[in-house]
Amino acid sequence: MPEYSIGLDLGGTNLRAAAVSREGDILEKISVSASPQKGREHLLGEMVAVIGDLRSRWGTGQLGGIGLGVPGFILLKDGVIRNSNNLACLEDFPFRDEMERRLQTPIILENDGNAAALGEKWRGAGRDVDDLVMLTLGTGIGGGIISRGRVLHGFLGMAGELGHLTVVPNGTPCGCGNRGCLEKHASATAITSMARLLGLGDDLTSAGVYSLASNGNEHAQTVFRCMGEALGIALAMMVNVFNFPLYLLSGGVLPAWDRFAPAMLEEMQRRSFTFRTTETKIEKAILGNEAGLYGAAYLPWIAAK
Amino acid sequence: MPEYSIGLDLGGTNLRAAAVSREGDILEKISVSASPQKGREHLLGEMVAVIGDLRSRWGTGQLGGIGLGVPGFILLKDGVIRNSNNLACLEDFPFRDEMERRLQTPIILENDGNAAALGEKWRGAGRDVDDLVMLTLGTGIGGGIISRGRVLHGFLGMAGELGHLTVVPNGTPCGCGNRGCLEKHASATAITSMARLLGLGDDLTSAGVYSLASNGNEHAQTVFRCMGEALGIALAMMVNVFNFPLYLLSGGVLPAWDRFAPAMLEEMQRRSFTFRTTETKIEKAILGNEAGLYGAAYLPWIAAK
Repeated sequence: MPEYSIGLDLGGTNLRAAAVSREGDILEKISVSASPQKGREHLLGEMVAVIGDLRSRWGTGQLGGIGLGVPGFILLKDGVIRNSNNLACLEDFPFRDEMERRLQTPIILENDGNAAALGEKWRGAGRDVDDLVMLTLGTGIGGGIISRGRVLHGFLGMAGELGHLTVVPNGTPCGCGNRGCLEKHASATAITSMARLLGLGDDLTSAGVYSLASNGNEHAQTVFRCMGEALGIALAMMVNVFNFPLYLLSGGVLPAWDRFAPAMLEEMQRRSFTFRTTETKIEKAILGNEAGLYGAAYLPWIAAK
Repeated sequence: MPEYSIGLDLGGTNLRAAAVSREGDILEKISVSASPQKGREHLLGEMVAVIGDLRSRWGTGQLGGIGLGVPGFILLKDGVIRNSNNLACLEDFPFRDEMERRLQTPIILENDGNAAALGEKWRGAGRDVDDLVMLTLGTGIGGGIISRGRVLHGFLGMAGELGHLTVVPNGTPCGCGNRGCLEKHASATAITSMARLLGLGDDLTSAGVYSLASNGNEHAQTVFRCMGEALGIALAMMVNVFNFPLYLLSGGVLPAWDRFAPAMLEEMQRRSFTFRTTETKIEKAILGNEAGLYGAAYLPWIAAK
């Protein structure tokens, strides 16, 4: 009987994998640098090696399945990454099939934002609900929608691209072709861009901008207010669309919550009748960057249902 | 064995009800003026009379159930209309319970936009898919989301309020508290407001503005282009969120399709990577204002499943 699964979370900078028990406890975790600049062959080799390591240590007979979370627009049925800002070397290539060939076992592919949302639903801040929306605020913004306990995929697996909601119709151009995408106005990258434009410094991180804001710098505070407003516009729309009980925020920008949340919540109050008049929760995710690992590892169990 | 159901569609101006066979054929249809200005008691009496008529003619024993489509934000579990621009007299009142008491039978309540989307899924342009989003472009804009063959309700039944998507963050104020709601920029009301502001006339209908545009009036053409752009922003977001195969447009503004659709589709091309690269269909609904009737009548059959 299967006792554990393997989840892998591939990011632009890190590749993390874990053997996770059926109950959702991490048995072993491996983290290596992803180095996408070394090309596709290197990346595939790294992933196969990491998964192979875990499988050989925890046993082939007990393995319930392997789930892979990867960034970008994914064609689920084909197992192909259509478009990924961070992993261009894996685009339009039979990614899942090649991984299956090398590992000689089925692989379940998932968008990283969806995997993170699923992880929070399984073991995190969403474990008491069946419906939630999660936004991961990092270099970009990933989204994941859990409806009736499962990832909402759409017909090709490209649903949940919430980083590309339009929040400023004539705003900053985005790699996806749109202008004013949420991720151009509320990601870590957006925070440092705004800080640069306001003359706060050329090589600040979003954490650096947060420090400035916390030390009373009004320009830095404005940056977080603008970012919170953009986030509030997007979340208000999601509340109006889904009327789900829970919306989670995650990612590297989350520690700046006290700086952006007031403007975000004020915007939601104004813009969503549903938010204003119901008990809708906006909360911090709790699994940090392990959410995607948990979610990827959970994929084989729900696929078997 | 139940052979038919009764669907009722309550609008701001008309009250329509029909006895519909299990196979989805309308057996008899009644349409009366809704007259909400005559107050709640009058409206309840009218609805009870119309349903009573149909039931007495088609038989109590064969009746599978009664579905009611009503406009506004609805608390489904409570059977209460929270907020309705068109039917304020029914707000915050135990609407479903009172109807059940008077008719001595269970009633299934549904938002009118959801009912219309469900009707198109059952018998209309959506009958070949399990997932669709529908927008009804009328005095306001109603939305309905069908996911896995059922209405997506959210935890209170308030999901699908797509008329209140923000398409112009600092746009026209809306009764819901927001600014720049889709329905303030792409409904029939929005079309006549824009026409008025552009000096085309003070008492034009949206059909009148359409005639002007078709006769070469450039201001009138601009009105439909702006309306199409607003619609395109909203639809591009819905494509990015849901990745559903089908998005339907319906309502009184639909005949102006040739005037607004080019700008709408252009905006979607630009704003949605998913739309640009997949076979996503944007189509006209085909049941007209009977969609809500069909959907309301379908409610008892899916509730029984």
